[in-house]
Amino acid sequence: MGATKKVKVDGQFSMHRGGFLESPTIAYETWGELRGKGENAILLFTGLSPSAHAASSPANQATGWWEDMIGSGLPLDSDRFFIICINSLGSCFGSTGPASVNPATGETYRLEFPVLTLEDVADGGYAVVKALGLERIHTTIGCSMGGMSALAFCVRHPELSASFLSVSSATRALPFSIAVRSLQREMIRQDPKWDRGRYEPDDPPISGQRLARKLGMITYRSAEEWEERFGRERMLSEGHEGDQFFGDFAIESYLESQAQKFTGQFDPNCYLYLSRASDLFDLAEHGGSLAAGFSKLRLNRAMVIGVRTDILFPLHQQEEMANGLSAVVDDFEFVRLDCNRGHDSFLVDMDAFRPVIGRFLED
Amino acid sequence: MGATKKVKVDGQFSMHRGGFLESPTIAYETWGELRGKGENAILLFTGLSPSAHAASSPANQATGWWEDMIGSGLPLDSDRFFIICINSLGSCFGSTGPASVNPATGETYRLEFPVLTLEDVADGGYAVVKALGLERIHTTIGCSMGGMSALAFCVRHPELSASFLSVSSATRALPFSIAVRSLQREMIRQDPKWDRGRYEPDDPPISGQRLARKLGMITYRSAEEWEERFGRERMLSEGHEGDQFFGDFAIESYLESQAQKFTGQFDPNCYLYLSRASDLFDLAEHGGSLAAGFSKLRLNRAMVIGVRTDILFPLHQQEEMANGLSAVVDDFEFVRLDCNRGHDSFLVDMDAFRPVIGRFLED
Repeated sequence: MGATKKVKVDGQFSMHRGGFLESPTIAYETWGELRGKGENAILLFTGLSPSAHAASSPANQATGWWEDMIGSGLPLDSDRFFIICINSLGSCFGSTGPASVNPATGETYRLEFPVLTLEDVADGGYAVVKALGLERIHTTIGCSMGGMSALAFCVRHPELSASFLSVSSATRALPFSIAVRSLQREMIRQDPKWDRGRYEPDDPPISGQRLARKLGMITYRSAEEWEERFGRERMLSEGHEGDQFFGDFAIESYLESQAQKFTGQFDPNCYLYLSRASDLFDLAEHGGSLAAGFSKLRLNRAMVIGVRTDILFPLHQQEEMANGLSAVVDDFEFVRLDCNRGHDSFLVDMDAFRPVIGRFLED
Repeated sequence: MGATKKVKVDGQFSMHRGGFLESPTIAYETWGELRGKGENAILLFTGLSPSAHAASSPANQATGWWEDMIGSGLPLDSDRFFIICINSLGSCFGSTGPASVNPATGETYRLEFPVLTLEDVADGGYAVVKALGLERIHTTIGCSMGGMSALAFCVRHPELSASFLSVSSATRALPFSIAVRSLQREMIRQDPKWDRGRYEPDDPPISGQRLARKLGMITYRSAEEWEERFGRERMLSEGHEGDQFFGDFAIESYLESQAQKFTGQFDPNCYLYLSRASDLFDLAEHGGSLAAGFSKLRLNRAMVIGVRTDILFPLHQQEEMANGLSAVVDDFEFVRLDCNRGHDSFLVDMDAFRPVIGRFLED
């Protein structure tokens, strides 16, 4: 994380649902050079689990989570734009979250962290914008959960951003995704190692995290992709020889290896807070209705991109956002992509996303 | 279970993937009067969890799982038909399964039960057919997993059944449903109370079962139904006051009450066996391809019913079965229903299913 920059907020940071944090830190990374007061700035909010390391750079050469989207000659073109990616407040990659030490007590926050909302995540982004001295933003972009954070940002600071791009996101969570996330949280909390959030950092509730990650993968990808990719192919999961209930089908091996990759990387309490924040967000709370929320925006331009096979942020939710934006933004476009890799398509099907995002960001 | 009848198989019952059971019992219930050698017999295979008690009767007045489908004047008309519902081998409602005592050892089978397949479930149905002296069957019907058991029955005994009705089933499991069931099994097995299948009957792995049931409900119903029914309505789950991660949304309360209803009713080891049997079934194993499997059938009539919002046995899998059957059955019909309650529609949207099944069973 060599390239990660940090902003330390002076004094108390008020939380949207009450309580406050004492001088929290917001981590971010940037690519390209800032021009003027932010005329070429792109503010990028992430999904639930990524860090601010969206792309490699000389200071941190590790591959980023949107590596093929950000850089010289790419749609988020670092030759033209000053790109800022925010590590969400509540996360565990540099920004203050439940795994951070509470300066008031000297103890890790754990469940003493106040209720987190995506409005707070948006305010974390705003703290970075202020610290960088930006007075305007070319485009605010959010992917997945980050699309809701970005929407919260634009509603709370309508004067700042001229343009908004939502990638596989929504105006609010609906019962299917709430049910999935609620069950994921329950899996983690039922692992005895969770211990009401008081696990040791080197002995987290790995079993619960693995189950939660597998359910995540089931909702991040698509049945269609898996049918083409795995079918009924057999591939024994290592360590499960002779196990009659698990590991014989290739899809089971795939989920097992995906779950093993993820666990250990993400703090379980941070996951619980960000997961619940995703449930809680509802644009309609900004004014009493979705229409009232949209009417607060002052955008010149907007785009909504959705994917046919996404079951977590399904196309009809993208349509809902598109209808709301098209009513208040003159230059609006809704792009339905036919990708077969579900919600994760924006991370893996770059050939579909690059041209669309590139077109949106052209002068 | 006063109305449950039982057939005890004489001697060894060979299992499809090897091993045998010593004199297993198959439980079943019947409605109506048998005519001739089975000219009016309907053989009904159930989904994973129901018992043979598909409808109430004078001997057992409790509501059955297909109460509004079976009885005088209903589509499975007990005035015309002799209806037999089979409790699947491996289940825990009268038929021999992992929760039964192994006569060879005097101990509960638990994980010593041999690998279970839907071919074995079909053979359990055949044992009942033989014991009742049937030489033909008017129609074989299967719902959900039972549709695969019924298909196995018709392929293995093509001379018996003149007609076949598949309700929200498939020719084989695909990766999405395998992934879901694999994760459900893992949830149960990671509950420390599962104890490698050696839990006490009065202290089963309830926590794991509750998680598995919730994931089940997520795949049995539909996002569309839940959006209409629950939206973002709040309803606090009892006992979860002040819990910031759980129970605030109506959908969470709903899943909690559904999970509490189910756990305690179904033996966890039996669940593991039947769940894996659902993964294992593949009609293509009967001859080397789906087409070869279908070509073994000798049906005069068949119908496939599928539901638009079913994500567990999705419509394109019903189409696959429809294509296969239409190639070998002259009188074939494929019915796509527009129900919004997902896979469970056949249990809850009777106004949609009754007329279609009634038409199929008319003379």
